Amino acid sequence: MASEYRTTRRIEWADTDTAGIIHFSRYFCFMEEVEHEFLRSLGLSCIMERDGQRITWPRVNATCDFIRPVRFEDVVDVHLSVKRKGTKSITFEFVFSHNGVEVARGHVTTACCRIENDKLVSIPIPEFVGSKIKQQPQSL
Amino acid sequence: MASEYRTTRRIEWADTDTAGIIHFSRYFCFMEEVEHEFLRSLGLSCIMERDGQRITWPRVNATCDFIRPVRFEDVVDVHLSVKRKGTKSITFEFVFSHNGVEVARGHVTTACCRIENDKLVSIPIPEFVGSKIKQQPQSL
Amino acid sequence: MASEYRTTRRIEWADTDTAGIIHFSRYFCFMEEVEHEFLRSLGLSCIMERDGQRITWPRVNATCDFIRPVRFEDVVDVHLSVKRKGTKSITFEFVFSHNGVEVARGHVTTACCRIENDKLVSIPIPEFVGSKIKQQPQSL
Amino acid sequence: MASEYRTTRRIEWADTDTAGIIHFSRYFCFMEEVEHEFLRSLGLSCIMERDGQRITWPRVNATCDFIRPVRFEDVVDVHLSVKRKGTKSITFEFVFSHNGVEVARGHVTTACCRIENDKLVSIPIPEFVGSKIKQQPQSL
Repeated sequence: MASEYRTTRRIEWADTDTAGIIHFSRYFCFMEEVEHEFLRSLGLSCIMERDGQRITWPRVNATCDFIRPVRFEDVVDVHLSVKRKGTKSITFEFVFSHNGVEVARGHVTTACCRIENDKLVSIPIPEFVGSKIKQQPQSL
Repeated sequence: MASEYRTTRRIEWADTDTAGIIHFSRYFCFMEEVEHEFLRSLGLSCIMERDGQRITWPRVNATCDFIRPVRFEDVVDVHLSVKRKGTKSITFEFVFSHNGVEVARGHVTTACCRIENDKLVSIPIPEFVGSKIKQQPQSL
Repeated sequence: MASEYRTTRRIEWADTDTAGIIHFSRYFCFMEEVEHEFLRSLGLSCIMERDGQRITWPRVNATCDFIRPVRFEDVVDVHLSVKRKGTKSITFEFVFSHNGVEVARGHVTTACCRIENDKLVSIPIPEFVGSKIKQQPQSL
Repeated sequence: MASEYRTTRRIEWADTDTAGIIHFSRYFCFMEEVEHEFLRSLGLSCIMERDGQRITWPRVNATCDFIRPVRFEDVVDVHLSVKRKGTKSITFEFVFSHNGVEVARGHVTTACCRIENDKLVSIPIPEFVGSKIKQQPQSL
């Protein structure tokens, strides 16, 4: 059972804006990419077929504090941790740092859903997923 | 003095993802675009020269609740309101609705900064900006 | 029957990069958005149901010459014209100009396809589409 | 002296659209990212200071053929090759393949420029760059 994951992202040219720094919206994409990378590391995916059900994880809420700017070609370390594992949703925290200094910190809450005729229906996290992900002990 | 602004955005093909709905990161871009549209409607810009200073508004925090999905070619109404006007920062609220139903709600806090040798230095909101923007009465 | 369409796009903050100019990839998104706007102006869409078929228009080729830079808040005029209407595909030309000066020129070829079990199968352009779009007379 | 470079890219969720495949504009971003990765592998960058000059490489033209769709989580192999090394510009070719099958092929021409008072001035490729990059022998 995993409660954290570490990876890196490089700031690409298209990630930056006229201010010469990363565009804030890119952090939200990075958070999603890292969440998916975490799921893959557990043999899971953000969209899976199981027992005839299609299961996916839409975002319910996302938030980010932008602390220091990073620039083109900077590499940021990303630390994902499972802040809260509920019955039907998971809240991830993401700490971004550059050269050991925190540059941004975000949270994303995703809800476990079944896709039913193009609609999303909230469901309890299935055992085959829940058995692989645990909440960080130091979290509330 | 303005404390709110209304506009619309259409969901473009590139805004959507494999789930057939808007990608959540796009709401953050829409919020920024609408904030800039609001500033332009007041004769301002998110990057201005004044008295030899270059003034800009980096994001300090952004958050969004994703309530209902919207899809390709949907038009969303966006209602910006000034939730808090501080000495050095402004918090905007954005309510997104489609056919009269709320689909997302976000907040962005931006800090007034002077650009000094490529660094951003927080400054009090100058009079020529502050005199045009007021906090919504019903806000805290 | 229409062979051209005119609209505008404003360069948003997220469209720019560290060089302070529009990121070149954005022109390709603009071309697609304008193509879709053109289709909507004819009562069509890039994804339509008809006679039990789902019809869409994947891109086969896209190209663009980047002539002059444009910057944040610049408004560009976009002129779409139908350069070639084939049996199964359409080639659009897009001329982008700013203050009357051409800044970029691109071409996109899209193929008419039926969606069949998640696969795309090339089909002749159906009459209800073809009857509304014509090739520009001055084109080859 | 290098004339080619190989790397990979994974298709992220935000790279896809309602058709469940990569959005075509993403290939142009991938091409730029891989070009920059190639430059870094040679100790260069797409924006460098040298002898008091700031040198950068704006795109002059970009083109891409989209051959087969790829989907979320697919990994594509990217093969960059230097198709033409001119006096003032370089044309790169990018072949994208998935499981050994070509899925897209693009070309990008970039011009060597000096940044002068926010303007871009075309210059001959400096020796410290040109000495590290060579045209592929089999190219015209």
